[in-house]
Amino acid sequence: MSNYKKIDVKDIEFLKGVVSDKNIFTGEDISEDYSHDELGGISNYPEVLVKVHSTKEVSKIMKYAHENVIPIVARGSGTGLVGASVPLHGGIMIDLTEMNKILELDKENLTLTVEPGVLLMEIGKYVEDQDFFYPPDPGEKSATIGGNISTNAGGMRAVKYGVTRDYVRGLEVVLPNGEILNLGGKVVKNSSGYSIKDLIVGSEGTLGIVTKAILKLLPLPKKSVSVLIPFENLEKAIDTVPKIIKSKAIPTAIEFMEREVILAAEEFLGKKFPDNSSDAYLLLTFDGNSKAQVENDYSKVADLCLKEGALDAFIVDTDERKEAVWSARGAFLEAISATTPEMDECDVVVPRNNVAEFIKYTHKLAKDFNIRIPSFGHAGDGNLHVYICKDKLDKEDWETKLKEVFGCMYKKSEELKGLVSGEHGIGYAKREFMFNQYGDEYMILMKNIKLAFDSKNILNPGKVCQ
Amino acid sequence: MSNYKKIDVKDIEFLKGVVSDKNIFTGEDISEDYSHDELGGISNYPEVLVKVHSTKEVSKIMKYAHENVIPIVARGSGTGLVGASVPLHGGIMIDLTEMNKILELDKENLTLTVEPGVLLMEIGKYVEDQDFFYPPDPGEKSATIGGNISTNAGGMRAVKYGVTRDYVRGLEVVLPNGEILNLGGKVVKNSSGYSIKDLIVGSEGTLGIVTKAILKLLPLPKKSVSVLIPFENLEKAIDTVPKIIKSKAIPTAIEFMEREVILAAEEFLGKKFPDNSSDAYLLLTFDGNSKAQVENDYSKVADLCLKEGALDAFIVDTDERKEAVWSARGAFLEAISATTPEMDECDVVVPRNNVAEFIKYTHKLAKDFNIRIPSFGHAGDGNLHVYICKDKLDKEDWETKLKEVFGCMYKKSEELKGLVSGEHGIGYAKREFMFNQYGDEYMILMKNIKLAFDSKNILNPGKVCQ
Repeated sequence: MSNYKKIDVKDIEFLKGVVSDKNIFTGEDISEDYSHDELGGISNYPEVLVKVHSTKEVSKIMKYAHENVIPIVARGSGTGLVGASVPLHGGIMIDLTEMNKILELDKENLTLTVEPGVLLMEIGKYVEDQDFFYPPDPGEKSATIGGNISTNAGGMRAVKYGVTRDYVRGLEVVLPNGEILNLGGKVVKNSSGYSIKDLIVGSEGTLGIVTKAILKLLPLPKKSVSVLIPFENLEKAIDTVPKIIKSKAIPTAIEFMEREVILAAEEFLGKKFPDNSSDAYLLLTFDGNSKAQVENDYSKVADLCLKEGALDAFIVDTDERKEAVWSARGAFLEAISATTPEMDECDVVVPRNNVAEFIKYTHKLAKDFNIRIPSFGHAGDGNLHVYICKDKLDKEDWETKLKEVFGCMYKKSEELKGLVSGEHGIGYAKREFMFNQYGDEYMILMKNIKLAFDSKNILNPGKVCQ
Repeated sequence: MSNYKKIDVKDIEFLKGVVSDKNIFTGEDISEDYSHDELGGISNYPEVLVKVHSTKEVSKIMKYAHENVIPIVARGSGTGLVGASVPLHGGIMIDLTEMNKILELDKENLTLTVEPGVLLMEIGKYVEDQDFFYPPDPGEKSATIGGNISTNAGGMRAVKYGVTRDYVRGLEVVLPNGEILNLGGKVVKNSSGYSIKDLIVGSEGTLGIVTKAILKLLPLPKKSVSVLIPFENLEKAIDTVPKIIKSKAIPTAIEFMEREVILAAEEFLGKKFPDNSSDAYLLLTFDGNSKAQVENDYSKVADLCLKEGALDAFIVDTDERKEAVWSARGAFLEAISATTPEMDECDVVVPRNNVAEFIKYTHKLAKDFNIRIPSFGHAGDGNLHVYICKDKLDKEDWETKLKEVFGCMYKKSEELKGLVSGEHGIGYAKREFMFNQYGDEYMILMKNIKLAFDSKNILNPGKVCQ
């Protein structure tokens, strides 16, 4: 594993033949940012950082790294939460953020072709300005689309619209040996051999480097309304969600939030949330093409919630109110982070009707371990974001408790037929939990697949299945 | 490749220890049906046929076959069109049609859990009776769901709802070494390692045997209306489709059909189609939850078509008319088949705005080669079903012309950024065309993936990438 070649002068010379000098960084010229992502506790510098601007450059560098057995890691905005883009073994880091062109909006095929460094927020703005819609909506809008594809990012609208995978029609990928493959395309159906495209999606930069993506778009829904529904407590709120699903309404999003997290967001943003008088809230969105239809949908669900014990139902339909609610929702992670010197997160996904039980269990853990565990997340799709906060614990206590609490949580998630990660991925941090859940045979198969792509194990080694 | 162990008395004894005697067939007791699927020209008998009734049985047989290097092929209804379930090397055939139980409808998670032998028509009826909806809608309703998953079947509703892959939440799979894996589950999101589930979907029984599936359901749309729109000729009809897509309408289905095919269906079914006076038709469906919305959608599109030169627009909203139109549509394949002693089909998928050019090209080929090439298909998703008919040609002429015509068609499809198969798969028949398009590096990767699952190459050898 560690018989990788160290970068030397000859390698730098090679790189200078591929990209211009100003795009090559070594030693102290490499910004600290590149040594980690948003996961605390794990960092390492690449030996050389290369900013690339074309698929050809990526291909040449990969081919060279393959021939010389040099580890290589691709990086976008570095907003990952599981250490997937940390260059554990040094080597070459390829920075794709300057491959950031939107290449084509094809209105007849409803596709958008982009380079991997385009930011999620840029895609949203670009297509919505032209009345199109790219549904995946993760909270972190400054992530690159390449990063979103690599983690199969989900976001708020998965209840109705699905996740990133569902919007990737085609990919251009550079394999670990430098070969360039085109997978899928603008086609809507495809039964032409194994779906390598779907294997690349969610592979966290371990099987190939995405250098171009063809995304599926939808027409922009004409009308969208959110409803904020306060409840006495979180259990009551979440218990209502399977009933909403069972009622056959299809909200775009169903988020749950606790007062503690809302207060943290108010503090963090210096802005008021429309209401913070209740302990827990559901925030739902409904979209569609006619006002009547959307109104019908949300009033049915609001009535159901009131019948189930909701305290009120606030319609969020002005731009101002929408901004207040959704900017708070978007800031939850950072807001919690600002309340504690360190934290780690659990991103499990469970069947929707088990969300309440899981959250109850985290409350029990908080009591049992005397540790703060705020949470928020996607009640409508069963994907929870649960934060274990260090607060005033000393290092040793913190590490012990964190390990124990994580152990309990992932065990509970497995009991509830959940999986380790809903949308943040496995990366470096969650491998152990995935290994435990999947067992040897499953992991051997994943390792075999990794070898099928990367016989020399040079691409992002030490991640996901290793 | 051909060093497979032949079945002997000892093997039969082993099988008798796994399933009861009445579920084991050898020699003349094996029905001719099991030697082929719906593809003409390729057939072979298994050495032994085993009807299985549980995952454990499949696992035990696979483990034994793995240890003894015996080839093994899984079979559902045998409705495939590319020879994927023909046991080229003899060995064991596992018949899954009696693993046909619907195991659970989970209304809170909107999932249906089924065994692989359940028929597509049974799933449709079962869920619709309870006001749920399983959108994938291939013409062949007597296919098993296991077969649909293995080919990533598409069907008519892919325009709005996507294909089988989009509705597979979880799979239980028996690997070639007999190990049983559970992939995915009832969860809506999943970023927990490589998506092996998505690799199994569409792998045509070469990577593992699906023994259980958890399918995603939707609430059944309350209202559905079809519109039959006649045009002067097929080019005019198909040229309208990208304009419909561009108008941001989202029909459930957009099918195209020619008069010749309609007449064949009338003859075949002994039933009249609502109109056969025009040369070409588009058949569109719109669905939704309110009458007003559906009417608004279809009248906008009907107006657009009339503006683009359509001759009329027949609303198909009574049960009787719907039955007449869609039963004809469902019978097209068999109807064409009944007009010729032999035929072969091309199932390419191209970007939606290239459908017209492809169809024009097939008309040119029909003229140039003096051969009949009727077609129909999914104009809304770019997936075409094009039939080359032998008619009165002698064997030699037929084989030569077929090869040449196929060569031209797949070349054209590649030029138009299409792919070899939209929904019928590669199986045995289309390997050459996929190899030609994908090239060596792509095929090596697929072969490596096959080896990652099946180191002894016992599972359905000679298919897809081999």
